[in-house]
Amino acid sequence: MSRFWSDTARRLTPYVPGEQPRMDKLVKLNTNESPYGPSPRAIEAIARAASEDLRRYPDPNSEALKAALARYHSVTPAQIFVGNGSDEVLAHAFMALLKHDAPLRYPDITYSFYPVYCGLFGIEAAPIPLTDALEIDPADYVGGAGPIIFPNPNAPTGRLLPIAAIEQILAANPDVPVVIDEAYIDYGGEAAIPLIDTHPNLLVTRTFSKSRALAGLRVGYAVGSAELVEGLERVKNSFNSYPLGRPAQAGAIASVEDEPHFRDSCARVIASREWLGRALTELGFEVLPSGANFVFARHPNHTGVALAAALRERAIIVRHFKLPRIDDYLRITVGTDEECAALVEALKELV
Amino acid sequence: MSRFWSDTARRLTPYVPGEQPRMDKLVKLNTNESPYGPSPRAIEAIARAASEDLRRYPDPNSEALKAALARYHSVTPAQIFVGNGSDEVLAHAFMALLKHDAPLRYPDITYSFYPVYCGLFGIEAAPIPLTDALEIDPADYVGGAGPIIFPNPNAPTGRLLPIAAIEQILAANPDVPVVIDEAYIDYGGEAAIPLIDTHPNLLVTRTFSKSRALAGLRVGYAVGSAELVEGLERVKNSFNSYPLGRPAQAGAIASVEDEPHFRDSCARVIASREWLGRALTELGFEVLPSGANFVFARHPNHTGVALAAALRERAIIVRHFKLPRIDDYLRITVGTDEECAALVEALKELV
Repeated sequence: MSRFWSDTARRLTPYVPGEQPRMDKLVKLNTNESPYGPSPRAIEAIARAASEDLRRYPDPNSEALKAALARYHSVTPAQIFVGNGSDEVLAHAFMALLKHDAPLRYPDITYSFYPVYCGLFGIEAAPIPLTDALEIDPADYVGGAGPIIFPNPNAPTGRLLPIAAIEQILAANPDVPVVIDEAYIDYGGEAAIPLIDTHPNLLVTRTFSKSRALAGLRVGYAVGSAELVEGLERVKNSFNSYPLGRPAQAGAIASVEDEPHFRDSCARVIASREWLGRALTELGFEVLPSGANFVFARHPNHTGVALAAALRERAIIVRHFKLPRIDDYLRITVGTDEECAALVEALKELV
Repeated sequence: MSRFWSDTARRLTPYVPGEQPRMDKLVKLNTNESPYGPSPRAIEAIARAASEDLRRYPDPNSEALKAALARYHSVTPAQIFVGNGSDEVLAHAFMALLKHDAPLRYPDITYSFYPVYCGLFGIEAAPIPLTDALEIDPADYVGGAGPIIFPNPNAPTGRLLPIAAIEQILAANPDVPVVIDEAYIDYGGEAAIPLIDTHPNLLVTRTFSKSRALAGLRVGYAVGSAELVEGLERVKNSFNSYPLGRPAQAGAIASVEDEPHFRDSCARVIASREWLGRALTELGFEVLPSGANFVFARHPNHTGVALAAALRERAIIVRHFKLPRIDDYLRITVGTDEECAALVEALKELV
C-alpha cells in the first residue's frame, strides 16, 4: 500500500490471467487459445498495416470494422461497439450499464473477472449459485431487481444454455441491462444476437481471441441496441479515443470476411472436444457437457491441484481454479489432435 | 439518455479527438502526428508479428518492452508502466493516483482530456489559470493540497517549462502525486524522468504517437517510482490483462532500439518548427514559443475560427479550440517542409 494510491487502487483485488510461460515444447492448454492459426487473410492484412501510415492515428470509431461486423451479424453499425479485447468491452459495460442501485447478478461460478470489475467500479454484486450440476437455472434469474451478466457457454464450466433459457431470462428482466458474454458461443451454441431487436436491454459481447485465433491482436466487440451502444461509446470516449490501432482494425476486418477459415477451425475444435471428452470419460473422469473450446473435468480419485501439478511436470499446462465448489476440476483447452493425445497419454499414467 | 445507463454514463461529457478525415491530398496539421514515418525497424517488427503466433495471448506484462524502455531511460523495469496509448495510461493514473480528498490541480488551459477523466472517475478538479502570457507559473502550484497533473510542454500552447520549474513544483508538493505528461518533450525539452529517484510521488507519461510516429499502433507508457507503478498495475490488472497486442509490443521495442531514426526525425521537426514560427511571425501572427511539434498562433486581424474554416476550404486542416482565452488561436502541427510551405502560402493569401 502507498499513501499516493487512491482509495480505489487500495481496495482492489486484481484479476490473475492464465500463465503465459516462455518454455519451448510446451503443451499449453491453459488459456483457451485456438490450436489453429488465424485466417491467412488476417495475417496478410496486419502485415500490410505495417507501413508508414502508422504515423497517423487510426479511425477512432473503427467505422470500417463496425460495418464489417454489422454485415456479418445482420445488424446496423450503430448496434456494434468495439474495444481492445472483450475484457475492455466488458469493463466499459460494467461502468456504463451494470452499475445501478440494485446489486448486479451473475453466477457464483463464472468468469472470475466479473467480481474484479465490481471492485474496480464500486458495484455491489449478488452472485447466484449454480445448481448442483453446475448449471445456470433460468428460474433463479426471475424476480430479482438488478442487472445481469453471465457467459454463455459459462466459464469455466463450459455449460451451454439453449436460446429458450436466454429468452426466459430476458422476458423476466425487461427493465435492467442483461449482458451475455458469448466468448465461446462459436463452438456450437446458438447466438443471442438476433434477440437484440426485440430486447433493447440486451448486450452480447464477443471476442476475436478464441474462435478467430487472434488473442495476440486484442479485439473484442459487443452487439446490442443503439441505446446501449451509445452508453458504451460515452464511456469509451471518456477513457481512450483510439482503443484499436491500425493493425488491429485491419486484421479484424479480414478475419470477419474469411468465413470458410472460421467455420473450418471451429468444426475441427468441436470434433476434437468430443474426442477429448470421450477419452477423459474412459479414464474415469467426470466431464461436464461443453459448448466451448475447453472441457471441465474432475477425477473421483485425484485432486485437481495434484493432477495439474503432475501434468506440469510433463510440460503440459492446464488451468486449475482454487475456488469453492470447483477446486477438484481441471479446465483443459482443446488443443490440436496431437496435444489432446499427449494430454490423454499423460493422464493415463497418472490416474 | 437511456434508463439502462449508469449514473456515470449519464453525467459524462466525452472527449472529442481531432478529426481523422478520409480525404486524399489533404494537408493534415490537426492532430500532431509526425510528418515522417516510424522507424523502418518498427515496421519490420510489426510485419514479423503478423504470424500464426497471433493465436496466442501476448505477454500480459509486456516484460520485453518494459526492459527495453528501462534500458533506454536508465531505470528499472519496475519503474515502467505501459498501456494502450498514453490516453489509457493517463486514464489509469487518474483512477489509481489522482483521486484523493483534495481536488486535482491542473492548468485551466491544457490537454482537454483531463476534465473528461475527472468526469469519468468522479474526481473534483481545481483548475489553476495560466498567466496572461499563457504560461504555467510554478509559484501557483505552491501551497495547495491536491495532486497535480500538467503536460510539459503544455498543450495546446506548446510552452515548455525548464527543469528548474518542475523541481520547484515537486519541492513544494512532496505529499501528493505529481504527473507530468511529456507527450511532446522530445522536441527540445528536458525530461523530468531523472527526478523519479528522488521524488517517489513523480510519474512521467510518454507516448509513441508523436516523436516515434506510431500513433496508429497505440502504445504509451509511464515512468515513476515502483510504488506509483504498482498502483497503476493494480488498476490495469483490474481492467484489462492484455492491453498491448503482439504487434504493438514488437513495434514499440524496435522503435525504442532505433535511436538514430528517432533523433533524426525530432531534429527535422524542430528545424521545421523554427522555420514555421518565423514565417508566421512575418505574416503578422503572434506565435507562442513552442517546445512541441506544433505551434500555437493567433493573428490580430482574424479570428481563429475564420482562419481555420478558410484553410479547410483549401484542404488544409488545423485545430481550433472553442474555449475561453484561446479561441483566437490556431494549433498547427509541424508537417513536412512542403506542408508547412503550403500552409504559409495559404495564410499569405488570407491575412
